[in-house]
Amino acid sequence: MPHHIEFEPIGRRGPCAAEGTLLDAARELGVDLVSLCGGQGTCGRCKVQLLEGQLSPLTPMERERLSPQELQAGYRLACCAYPRSDVKLAVPPESLSTPQRTQVEGQAVSVALDPMIQYYQLQMSPPSLNDLASDARRTADALEQQHGVHCTTIDIALLRDISPALRDWGWRAQAAIRNGECIALHPWDTRHLGLAVDLGTTKVAGYLVDLDTGDTLASQGLMNPQIAYGEDVISRITCALESSEKAGEMQQLAVEAIALLSEELTTRIGATPNDIVDAVVVGNTAMHHLLLRLPVEQLVRAPYVPAVSSALDIKARDIGLCLAQGAYLHLLPNIAGYVGADHVAMILSMELWKAEGTVLALDIGTNTEICLSNHGALSSVSCASGPAFEGAHIKHGMRAAAGAIERLRLVGDEVQYHTIGASPPVGLCGSGVLDALAQLYLAGVIDHSGRMAKDHPRVRINKGQPEFVLIGEPDDVDSPCIAITQHDVRELQLAKGAMHTGIQVLLEAHGLSGQDIDEVIIAGAFGSYIDISNAIAVGMLPSLPLERFRQVGNAAGTGARMALVSRAQRAEAVQIARRVRYIELASVANFQNLFAQSMYLGE
Amino acid sequence: MPHHIEFEPIGRRGPCAAEGTLLDAARELGVDLVSLCGGQGTCGRCKVQLLEGQLSPLTPMERERLSPQELQAGYRLACCAYPRSDVKLAVPPESLSTPQRTQVEGQAVSVALDPMIQYYQLQMSPPSLNDLASDARRTADALEQQHGVHCTTIDIALLRDISPALRDWGWRAQAAIRNGECIALHPWDTRHLGLAVDLGTTKVAGYLVDLDTGDTLASQGLMNPQIAYGEDVISRITCALESSEKAGEMQQLAVEAIALLSEELTTRIGATPNDIVDAVVVGNTAMHHLLLRLPVEQLVRAPYVPAVSSALDIKARDIGLCLAQGAYLHLLPNIAGYVGADHVAMILSMELWKAEGTVLALDIGTNTEICLSNHGALSSVSCASGPAFEGAHIKHGMRAAAGAIERLRLVGDEVQYHTIGASPPVGLCGSGVLDALAQLYLAGVIDHSGRMAKDHPRVRINKGQPEFVLIGEPDDVDSPCIAITQHDVRELQLAKGAMHTGIQVLLEAHGLSGQDIDEVIIAGAFGSYIDISNAIAVGMLPSLPLERFRQVGNAAGTGARMALVSRAQRAEAVQIARRVRYIELASVANFQNLFAQSMYLGE
Repeated sequence: MPHHIEFEPIGRRGPCAAEGTLLDAARELGVDLVSLCGGQGTCGRCKVQLLEGQLSPLTPMERERLSPQELQAGYRLACCAYPRSDVKLAVPPESLSTPQRTQVEGQAVSVALDPMIQYYQLQMSPPSLNDLASDARRTADALEQQHGVHCTTIDIALLRDISPALRDWGWRAQAAIRNGECIALHPWDTRHLGLAVDLGTTKVAGYLVDLDTGDTLASQGLMNPQIAYGEDVISRITCALESSEKAGEMQQLAVEAIALLSEELTTRIGATPNDIVDAVVVGNTAMHHLLLRLPVEQLVRAPYVPAVSSALDIKARDIGLCLAQGAYLHLLPNIAGYVGADHVAMILSMELWKAEGTVLALDIGTNTEICLSNHGALSSVSCASGPAFEGAHIKHGMRAAAGAIERLRLVGDEVQYHTIGASPPVGLCGSGVLDALAQLYLAGVIDHSGRMAKDHPRVRINKGQPEFVLIGEPDDVDSPCIAITQHDVRELQLAKGAMHTGIQVLLEAHGLSGQDIDEVIIAGAFGSYIDISNAIAVGMLPSLPLERFRQVGNAAGTGARMALVSRAQRAEAVQIARRVRYIELASVANFQNLFAQSMYLGE
Repeated sequence: MPHHIEFEPIGRRGPCAAEGTLLDAARELGVDLVSLCGGQGTCGRCKVQLLEGQLSPLTPMERERLSPQELQAGYRLACCAYPRSDVKLAVPPESLSTPQRTQVEGQAVSVALDPMIQYYQLQMSPPSLNDLASDARRTADALEQQHGVHCTTIDIALLRDISPALRDWGWRAQAAIRNGECIALHPWDTRHLGLAVDLGTTKVAGYLVDLDTGDTLASQGLMNPQIAYGEDVISRITCALESSEKAGEMQQLAVEAIALLSEELTTRIGATPNDIVDAVVVGNTAMHHLLLRLPVEQLVRAPYVPAVSSALDIKARDIGLCLAQGAYLHLLPNIAGYVGADHVAMILSMELWKAEGTVLALDIGTNTEICLSNHGALSSVSCASGPAFEGAHIKHGMRAAAGAIERLRLVGDEVQYHTIGASPPVGLCGSGVLDALAQLYLAGVIDHSGRMAKDHPRVRINKGQPEFVLIGEPDDVDSPCIAITQHDVRELQLAKGAMHTGIQVLLEAHGLSGQDIDEVIIAGAFGSYIDISNAIAVGMLPSLPLERFRQVGNAAGTGARMALVSRAQRAEAVQIARRVRYIELASVANFQNLFAQSMYLGE
C-alpha cells in the first residue's frame, strides 16, 4: 500500500510507492527538487524537512552533509530517505528548482481577517403595480431592511447589469459592499475572491485569495510582458517618454498580464474574474506609475520624485481591468522614486517595524531595495543592481528557464551543475551566475579585484578577453560552450558592489557594523534560489553565520495578500511609508568611494 | 442718430434706424418675430413688451388686437410701433419663430449659489533633495497649509497629468475640490465652468454656466442624434434591446451630442471642455438609461420600473465623456419608468412644491409629463402623446426648421400663415399642426368627433381620404400642396386625448375640476411655440382665462442649471422625487373610457 506524501508549502500531495526515495516521490508528484549529483547523496542540495510521519533511518551520507542544527530540525536529504508512513514534508525554497520560477511562493498569510468587502445575501420580492421601486432602490432597501446596511451608492457598472441579473436569479442575490458602496451583485452562493499582485520589473506574481478565510486558493507567476520595452525601469521609462502611444501600450501590457492572471487563477477553481471583488497591487514606483499611466519623466530627473506616493484606491476599470463590476484596485503607498509599494509590502509582511534587534531585509532584483530595521527604526535605500542576476548582460546568461544552470560548483577542475528541468545546459540563470562567480573566486581563478587568472586550464582568451569555460572544450573556441567572461565578472561586481554599498550606507546611518545584524532577510525570486554561502563568499552579503539568514520568497506578494484581507494592514502600510527614512544614495557624501571599494570581491 | 434697441431675454441688441418699425429693427438684428400678415398689423402675432424707453403712440390696429391687460402691461405690435428713444423690449416666447428652435431658453436661474466644487489657488515650491515629497503629496500639503482644506483623494485621471502640469505652470495651480476630492488642477486664472444638459428624446439643450455667478454664459440646442434609431422612447428601447452593439451606439451618440455641446459652448467663450468641472444631465427615464447604458428591457415590460431612480454621481469618463480630468456627472433622480429626471427638474425650477394654489405643469413632448400641485401636494402622470406635435406621423408634418409653417389661421376660406425663416412653405411643424387642427375645428370643417366635412371648397378626397388643402390647388391632386388629412386629425386626436386624459386623472385624484386650476405652466420646446387659445379650442388644455397660462420654455434645462450651481437644489430634487405621487395611467380604473372621451374635440 503506497504512502501518502505531502510537500509544503507548495501543497503537492499524493500516494507514492514505498520502495522509492522522497526524491522519487517528489519527481512523481512534479515537485522539482534540486539535485546536482543525480541522487547520489553527494551534493546535499535536496534537503527537505520532516513535519509529520516517519522516514527510514538517517544514512551516514546525511549525517555528513547536514549540520547538527539541520539534523535537529528534522532535515533530511530527499535522495537518501524513504517513507515509512504517510508523511508531510516542508521544502525550503533553496531545495526547489523549476517550480514556479517566477517565484510566487512566500510566507503564509496569518493576519486577522478584516477585508474591505462585506457580503450580504438578499431576498427581494419582484416589482408590481403596487410596488414600483426601481431595481436599485429595491436592492438598497433589502440591504437596509434585511441587514441594517445603509448603501449610499451602487456602482454605475453594476447598475448596468442589475435588472437582468435580479430577474435571472429570481430576486435573490449576494451584495458586495465596500464603505457603503455596493460594488457587485452575485448569485447567492458565489465565493468571495480577492486578487493580490506583485508587479515586478521582470516577473508578475498573482495570488487568488479567499476573502472569508485568507487562504491563497491559487497562485501563478508570469513574465512581465513589458520586458519587450526594456529590461530595467530606466529603459522602460525612457521608452514611455518617447511617445504617449508607447506609454499606453506599456500600460496595456501590464493590465493584460494582470487580466491573464485573474483569468487563469479563477479558472483553476471554477470561478471567473467577475467574481473578484477586491485587488491589491504592489510594485516598484516605476511599475506602479506605468501601470496607472502616471507621469514618469520626473522619476528620471533629479530629484526623482514620484507623481504619487500615497496609497490609492481606484476603480479597476479605470486602468481597463475587468474584475467584478465596481471592484477597486488598492495600491500600497510608495516611499520614493526608487523605493516603491513592493518595498512597503515586504516591510509589512516581515513586520520589520516590530523587529527587536537589527534586521536587514533585501529584495534583490533588477533594482534592489534594502531596509534596515534598528529596533523598529526603519531606513531604506535603493540600489541599481542591474539585470545581471536576471541573466541579462552576461555572455551566457539566461532567465530561469529549462536548461538554465541554477546550481554550480567547482570540484578541482571539474564543474558540477544542475539545470532547471534537468535539461541539457544552455546557459546560466542568476543563481548559477552567482555560484560561478563565487566558485571561481574561492578557487583563486578570480582575484580580489575581479581579475581572471589566465593560467587555469579552463581559462582561454576569446576575442582578446579571458573567459572561464564551464561547459565545453576550452581548446576549441568555435565549439558550443558555456563560459564566464572577464566582462561578466565586471558586470557582477557592479551588481554586487551596488548591494554592498547600500548595506554599508544603511549600517553607517545607524552607526552599526555588519556584525551587529541579528537577521538578514532575503526576499524576491532570485534571492530565494541563491546559495547564501556563495553570496557571502563574494562579499555580496555580510559575513554572518548562515542561521542568521532567512530566504522568504516573494515577501512583497505576501504583503500584498496581507493588505488584501485586512484594512488594518493597509493602514499599517501607510504608516510604514511615512516612517521609513529614505536615504538617497546619490546624496551620500562618500558614495563614489564607497561604491568603488564595494566592488572588491571577498568577505 | 439711430436708436439702440435691445431684445430680451434673447439678449440681441444694436443700433436701428429711427424710420423703421420695431419689426424692421428685429429683422435687422436677426430676431425672428412671428408675422403672419407680413407686417400689416392684422395677425397680431408680433407682440413685444416695452420694458424701457419710448415708442410711437398706440395705433388703432394695436388697440384692436391687444387686450386691455396687454395694453396695460406695455405690450405693442412690433409692426406698428417705432422707437422714439433707446428702448429695451421683452419678446414673449410665442412671438418668436426661428431663434433656437431646439428651445434652450428658459427662466433665468436665481438660486443661492452653493456649487459642489470649491476652488483654491496654490503656490508650491519645487521638489529638491531636501524635500522629496511626491507631486500629489505636495499639492495636498499646499491645500492643507494654504487653505486648511483636507484633500482625501486626488482623481486618478488628474494624477496622470499632475507632474508635467505643475512644472509647466511654475508650481502655481488652481485646485478644484469636490467633497474632499481634488478633481482638477487648472492654471491660476482659469474660469469656473459647469455644464447643464437637458437630454430630450428629440432635442438636446446645453447650457454653459459660470459657477461663480450662476450666469448662463452660452446655450445651444441640437437634435438628439439617436433619432436615427427611432423617434420615440419605445422605438429607441426596442432598438437597444436588439443588440448590445446598438445599445452601445446609442449611448455613444448621446455622449457625442453632449461632447459636441461642451465643445461648441466652451469655444464660444474661449475655453475648452477640460475647463468644465461639473455637469448635470436631466432627461426622461429612457434617455437617462440609454445615456448611462443602463438596462432598459424592464422599462418596456409591466410594471415598467427603472433600473435606477435615485440621483447619481458618476465620473464623466464612465460614459466616455471628456470634461475636466476628474469631473463628475450628476443625474437628477427619476420618479418612474416614464417620469424621469427632466420632470423632477421642471418641478424644481417651477418650485411646484411651494405652490400655494392649484398649479398644473405640463412638459409637452413625444412623451408628455404632467404634474399637478395641490397646495404643494404633487402628483404626476405620463402620457404617450406621440410625435405628432414634433411633426411626425403627419402627412405634411416636419420638424421646426426653415420653411415649416409654425403659425396658421383661417380667415374665411383664406389660409394666413408664417413659416420659420420666412422661407417658402414646405410643411407644418408642431405649432402649425395644432393651429390647423384648431382653425379647422373652429371653422366647422372638422366636427366634435374629428370628422372632416367634405363640402368645404378646400376639402378634397385623395386616395379615398378627405384632406384639407392649406396651401396649393385643391382641384389638382397632383400639384404640390400642403394639406391636413383625416388621418392627421386622428393622430392629433390621439395626442390631444392622451394629454387631456392625463389632466383629468390628476384632477380626479385630487377631487378637483379644471376650473379649480389657478395656473397652467407649459414647458418644453413645442409648448413654448403653441397658440394657447388654439390648444384650448381643441380641448387639449383646460378652458381657462389666458392669463392663467404661463409658457416657460425649457423648464427642465432651467432645473438642471439650478442643480448645477446648488447642492441645496440637488437635495431638493431628491425630496421632490420622493414626494411626487406617481399615478400609472394603466392602473386607473376607467382609463379606456376616459381616453375615448378625451379624443373628442372642443373645450
